[in-house]
Formats: sequence, C-alpha cells, structure tokens
Amino acid sequence: MNNGAMPVEIHRRGLLLVLSSPSGAGKSTLARRLLESDPDMTMSVSVTTRKMRPGEVDGTDYHFITQERFEEMRDNADLLESATVFGNGYGTPRQPVDDCLAQGKDVLFDIDWQGTQQIVDKLPNDLVRVFILPPSAEELRERLIRRAQDPLSVVAGRMAEAAKEISHYAEYDYVLINDDLERCFEELRSILRAERLKRHRRAGLSDFVNSMQEKL
Amino acid sequence: MNNGAMPVEIHRRGLLLVLSSPSGAGKSTLARRLLESDPDMTMSVSVTTRKMRPGEVDGTDYHFITQERFEEMRDNADLLESATVFGNGYGTPRQPVDDCLAQGKDVLFDIDWQGTQQIVDKLPNDLVRVFILPPSAEELRERLIRRAQDPLSVVAGRMAEAAKEISHYAEYDYVLINDDLERCFEELRSILRAERLKRHRRAGLSDFVNSMQEKL
Repeated sequence: MNNGAMPVEIHRRGLLLVLSSPSGAGKSTLARRLLESDPDMTMSVSVTTRKMRPGEVDGTDYHFITQERFEEMRDNADLLESATVFGNGYGTPRQPVDDCLAQGKDVLFDIDWQGTQQIVDKLPNDLVRVFILPPSAEELRERLIRRAQDPLSVVAGRMAEAAKEISHYAEYDYVLINDDLERCFEELRSILRAERLKRHRRAGLSDFVNSMQEKL
Repeated sequence: MNNGAMPVEIHRRGLLLVLSSPSGAGKSTLARRLLESDPDMTMSVSVTTRKMRPGEVDGTDYHFITQERFEEMRDNADLLESATVFGNGYGTPRQPVDDCLAQGKDVLFDIDWQGTQQIVDKLPNDLVRVFILPPSAEELRERLIRRAQDPLSVVAGRMAEAAKEISHYAEYDYVLINDDLERCFEELRSILRAERLKRHRRAGLSDFVNSMQEKL
C-alpha cells in the first residue's frame, strides 16, 4: 500500500537475548547460527581473571583482566553480571552493552540462570530470556556421551547438573524444545523478529506518530 | 537431533489476538489472511441488539439478541467487553472465548482501544495487542478516498477519527507499520509464532520437565 515509496524505518532500542540451557541441548549451535545470519546481533564479550589459553584471543574470546581490575569493575557497578568459578572471576562489562542498545543493536548472552537473574534486576525491559530444553532425557544422555567421550561416571555427573539447570526453565520468557534444530532455529528467529516489533523498543514511534497526526 | 522420533507436542493455552488500527490501515485484509491461513485461529463472533441486515447470517456475522438479553449478559459478566453505538448494543460473549483458550485455540478480535481496555482487565495474561499504523497521513487519505468514494467532507471526518484512534497506539504490545502488506503479514505471523512459545502459555511444560527430570 506504499505505492513503491521507501519503507518506513523506525529507530528501535536493541535488546538483550539470553539463551540458557543444560549443556547438550544445542544452545551453542543455535547461538552460532544466529550470530552468522543476523547482522544486528552481536555477542557479548566477557571479562575474566583466568589465564589465557593457547589459541584464545584477548578481546575476542574474553577480555583478560587482573583480579584487582575485576573487583574494581564489580564494585563500581561496571559489570552487568558476575560470578566466581573455581577461583576465577567472570563478568559482563556494562558499557559496551549500553552502547549497543542505544544504537539499536542486540546483544547475545550465553549465561546461566544466575547471571540472568542479575541482569533482570538491572535492565528488565531490555531482556528477552529463552530457555532451550532437550527433547528427552534419553536424547540428552546420548548427546553428552557422543560429545564428551568421557567416562560414564562423568556423564552421570553432567546429567545431574542438567537436571538442576532444567528446573530453572520457569524463570524464562520463552521455552523452546530442541527436537529439530531447523525448527528450533526458526522459532528463535520468530521470537527475535517479534520482540524487535514491541512498542516499547521502537523508540522512533512517537516522532513518527506525532508527525502523522499533524497532517491528519 | 531427535533421530527421527516424533516431534514433542506441548499443550498450550490459547491467546487473544487484538488487532486495532484506524480504518484504512489494512487491518481487515490482515485479519482475513490470518484466519484463512492459520488453523488455530478463530474469529470471535459478537452479540448485537441491532437488526439483522440482508445477507447477514445469525451466528456467523453476529449473534442477534434482544436488548433484554444483552443487558442480562452484561450484568452477569457474560460479556468480555461491550459498547453501545447509536443505541445498539455490541459485545463479546465470554464463554466461547474461555473454551477456545482452554483448548489451545486462539481468538482474533477486531475491536478498538476501548474494547481492548475492558479485556485487559479480565484476561491480562492471555491478551496480545497489535496496533497497525498506516505508512503516512498521505497514504491513509488516499486509501480512504479510494475505498469509500465518499464526499471529501466525509473523508475529512474519517481522517479526524483516525488521528484520534492513532493516539492510542501506546496502549498496545506491538506496533506494525503497514507500508508493505506482505511484510506486515509476515511480522504478524512472527508475533503469533513467538507468543505461542511463551512459557506461561505452554501449560504442558511442567509435566514434560518433571518427567524428564525423573530420568536424569
């Protein structure tokens, strides 16, 4: 109905997409495909105090920082979320996320339910939380065995871990069941497409509507 | 990753899709296409006290009822929303909507912001509110002229009406700009697909997760 005129572009605020799941549910594959196919989606790069491993790149895999700097950032509220795991600090710097949101870019987070909870408190309106479930316990077991080639005792420990992680699905906005990777990916893209159309993110709407009303 | 097993089906609660827009923004076309293409979507049939017009079918276009019955339904809270326009009562019967929601069917409403407001209060978690904007004031004027073949004075009245209706966009969850019907329809379908994946609608999830956890 636009008679060949230019499509209407409305400036929008970006969003924070959190993908959580037990390991083995296909989250990493979905995240990688999303980043490859969606020019408006970027990955948040965490800071960490642990040592760089061979092959890792500072600023790409992590920002490698000292314990002192980590504590300073955490205490200054420069981290959106943080955790200490096996004595190493991990966290999400807030400034690059704020910049992305203002520019209408979205940021992908691959964090667990505890990190998610910390972000809810800080940016509740920007957050879109998606939990990925495996199709069945049997399928999850098979995937963990295939992938890790670990002794079965280790797999058993991971299964127990997964059972705990899964119980947090109820804290998420959307729940996907990864019984078919293609369908699950399309569902994820529909969620993103819809969330970007939410009125409260479309920051340019009020100017657009005001200028239309003046001419009506 | 399901190795050819059956896709996982999770029972979900239906949703109420409200489409609102000023007349001329393409809402009716979008609604018709949605009903034709989506087997889970049904149209709410209103009750009315006005006389049946030639060609109308009782139970399809409206349920034609007496003024007495209308008031009785309204006073018994059997109407989700109601209004009186030019002395005629209109309303949405609640029972068929409740039945649809429980069966996992969605119900489409073509109502204005006032009717929407009445439903928000009664079924806030089931409601998905979409507002459709025209791409520009000029385009809306052209469409009203083309469609109505009314005198320009009548078109001017409709434009003033549209300006008023548009100011209510801020009460909706999603705002679409109909500058391209195909794109707008795809956006509407993405919204529906995403909303159906919301955790709180997927009533069967807790059984699914419980039974998975027992095996982990």
